[in-house]
Amino acid sequence: MSLKSNHYAVFKKILIANRGEIALRVIRTCKEMGIKTVAVYSTADKDSLHVRFADEAVCIGPAPSKESYLNIPRIIAAAEITNADAIHPGYGFLSENAEFSRICDEYGIKFIGASPEMIAKMGDKATAKATMKAAGVPTIPGSEGLIESIEEGMKLANEMGYPVILKATAGGGGKGMRIVKEDKDFKKAWDDAKMESGAAFGNDGLYLEKFVEEPRHIEIQIVGDSNGKACHLSERDCSIQRRHQKLVEETPSPFITDELREAMGKAAIKGAEAIGYEGAGTIEFLVDKDRNFYFMEMNTRIQVEHPITEEVTDFDLIKEQIKVAAGEKISGRNYFPKLFAMECRINAEDPANGFRPSPGRINNLHIPGGRGVRVDSHVYAGYVIPPNYDSMIAKLIVSGQSREEVIVRMKRALEEFVIDGIKTTIPFHIALMEDEQFKAGNFTTKFLETFDFSLVKK
Amino acid sequence: MSLKSNHYAVFKKILIANRGEIALRVIRTCKEMGIKTVAVYSTADKDSLHVRFADEAVCIGPAPSKESYLNIPRIIAAAEITNADAIHPGYGFLSENAEFSRICDEYGIKFIGASPEMIAKMGDKATAKATMKAAGVPTIPGSEGLIESIEEGMKLANEMGYPVILKATAGGGGKGMRIVKEDKDFKKAWDDAKMESGAAFGNDGLYLEKFVEEPRHIEIQIVGDSNGKACHLSERDCSIQRRHQKLVEETPSPFITDELREAMGKAAIKGAEAIGYEGAGTIEFLVDKDRNFYFMEMNTRIQVEHPITEEVTDFDLIKEQIKVAAGEKISGRNYFPKLFAMECRINAEDPANGFRPSPGRINNLHIPGGRGVRVDSHVYAGYVIPPNYDSMIAKLIVSGQSREEVIVRMKRALEEFVIDGIKTTIPFHIALMEDEQFKAGNFTTKFLETFDFSLVKK
Repeated sequence: MSLKSNHYAVFKKILIANRGEIALRVIRTCKEMGIKTVAVYSTADKDSLHVRFADEAVCIGPAPSKESYLNIPRIIAAAEITNADAIHPGYGFLSENAEFSRICDEYGIKFIGASPEMIAKMGDKATAKATMKAAGVPTIPGSEGLIESIEEGMKLANEMGYPVILKATAGGGGKGMRIVKEDKDFKKAWDDAKMESGAAFGNDGLYLEKFVEEPRHIEIQIVGDSNGKACHLSERDCSIQRRHQKLVEETPSPFITDELREAMGKAAIKGAEAIGYEGAGTIEFLVDKDRNFYFMEMNTRIQVEHPITEEVTDFDLIKEQIKVAAGEKISGRNYFPKLFAMECRINAEDPANGFRPSPGRINNLHIPGGRGVRVDSHVYAGYVIPPNYDSMIAKLIVSGQSREEVIVRMKRALEEFVIDGIKTTIPFHIALMEDEQFKAGNFTTKFLETFDFSLVKK
Repeated sequence: MSLKSNHYAVFKKILIANRGEIALRVIRTCKEMGIKTVAVYSTADKDSLHVRFADEAVCIGPAPSKESYLNIPRIIAAAEITNADAIHPGYGFLSENAEFSRICDEYGIKFIGASPEMIAKMGDKATAKATMKAAGVPTIPGSEGLIESIEEGMKLANEMGYPVILKATAGGGGKGMRIVKEDKDFKKAWDDAKMESGAAFGNDGLYLEKFVEEPRHIEIQIVGDSNGKACHLSERDCSIQRRHQKLVEETPSPFITDELREAMGKAAIKGAEAIGYEGAGTIEFLVDKDRNFYFMEMNTRIQVEHPITEEVTDFDLIKEQIKVAAGEKISGRNYFPKLFAMECRINAEDPANGFRPSPGRINNLHIPGGRGVRVDSHVYAGYVIPPNYDSMIAKLIVSGQSREEVIVRMKRALEEFVIDGIKTTIPFHIALMEDEQFKAGNFTTKFLETFDFSLVKK
């Protein structure tokens, strides 16, 4: 990792092209580095803390994101009038927008993130997969394009090993998909999938992939520098998801062995170095029940769940992003978890009611504290959560000496957390911390599909 | 240190004979250990968080401490009616009351602290000093009792080396005290001190001590077990004091070398083991400009500033206290700082006005967050700080990879901290974090005597 110097002199002022907790998160690190900050905000966010805590703030338009947080000309104008020499895009919004990265370059404003080419390459799933495969990173085996016959399909299935999954090339929503576990079932699955996809999409073309059993979502944090070197900071297990939305993340993963961590870390570095990746990035893998891992996608930005990595490795990842953007070199050393950490995303949603969004006024707020508890949040008592943006209002991050300690501490902190006036996901997280399977580390990305939500207190 | 087991089974229920942040601190660890808690409270504290977060709460009387938090029969009664099998005394109040420790024993309630004998021995300054001296712990050299003549005094001064200080045996408030730097000044100092003390106290008896130049207050955290073994968890530098009240503490001390840490740790262990000390304790030393250290006193309880040690060693000291009280053995290993940590005591006092107490209602509260920031506090928005107790309302604890990082992070966190409705010491701490001498680590216990308080923002 790079040097530990504070007061990094290359950037004098950074504009944060984001809102909410991540805008505040970036401001905090800039303050600690002695760098001035510019907040941008929509009219809906005028009372936000990121506006109050930045050195300067510029209103960039009304609430709809395309008129403010996604409006490139207005953001560039804000950077120009405030003389910001770099832009931190946070996550979401413009953070993986190749055009924005390119325009920043054009205007001589350093984009603290990936290059336009990198974003474009990793943003297209097929290109990303092909690139990683060529670099020697394991990807989910599958047919090259459509399969012409049952015989061709069975031959391929035997080559990659059952189970496999047949998918409609025009598909979506699970239609025209069939899991096949052995040769004798292949013909029926093929006929069914063809008929179903033909009926649903008017196109009965099928392709085939290895079916990942009992998948876990495990991602590797990497940092690369302008020298083409990359290092990893180990994994985050983000398997606790609802409809592909992560709710809880932890590190180290209870499922990962030292050997697997080593192998996944090496693969992630290989992938990052193959594309000359610069900055902080995350390579997401699916890991099956036999601990085979397959590249899913790469996020060319900071992740929501980055703090758990910070807690166990002692690094400030935003600081690392800024230093690498300033041209500093990394040491090339890899970092392994010295502690255990977990993050619960506290959303303004009603978990007893299908996670329905619950914007509105926070009447009363009590933030948990004490040993091993970190809260990253932009809300305060009296704050009105606008309905326009995503519903995450706080990240509760807990660290400890063992996974068991982290879970009891998380439960303790969740019970201290008071957010009056709106519904939040806190009761869901408490129920999760009491779940025996979760406590034992027995979960996959399918875990919440069978979770008993009646256990969540209203 | 002891084993990392959670859910320690020996104690099922612990009564906390204290209030404020330390009561909450103990409750948090008990929750994480699966131990039930009983809060006691005065009528002035009925709206306190420690009452809300404990499993049970018992009102033990009106606001004056002697009628509630210092009232032994009522606390014992509360423990009996709630079936608590142990009492944690926190700090202050009954934590160093030998009688209370003895009565707990009598009633078969485990006192989570020192034995009556230990408290009595360390509570008496002369006995404590003699005990430590006998154990081979360096103490401040001085005369054995009164000095009869100038000649005797000069002889002793030459033996222990100048500078020395003459003190009135009946003294107080600096009267009858004279610092002597060399032989030629001895007679005048002697005559002046004799005259002054005779006039002030009607008693002109003088004794003599080595004068500690440019003293720093540096204390060693130790933990001893019922086997008579002790280990240390390194030092805390508590030199930033106002009228002997600590305001800021940090670890490691910027003044301490590895060799000195080793030597002070060894001395502290020697002292603790000589008296068979059991539990968490602190041995306070004065360290002079040449890095000689002298025993000052031993605190046979948890200290206010214990969290900074937790942040740099990964231990939960309250958990260690409970485990040792339950008979668990320590490993005997010593612990050295892996990080840097600092604590600012946030008091309801007006630093621009001689630190005058400022009790009252907290209208608005915003707690700082983010990486490396821990807050231990019992207050909330709407809480009314009663005028009856000490004025500390929060401990802001910051950790980082270097002292420089800790200071910039502390300043950042202090600036985020909003406590509306009362005056607090936050502006003083901000001014301190900007002080060049403090930043350079150049300070002694006299530092605040010359600090420019006009720099503190009102």
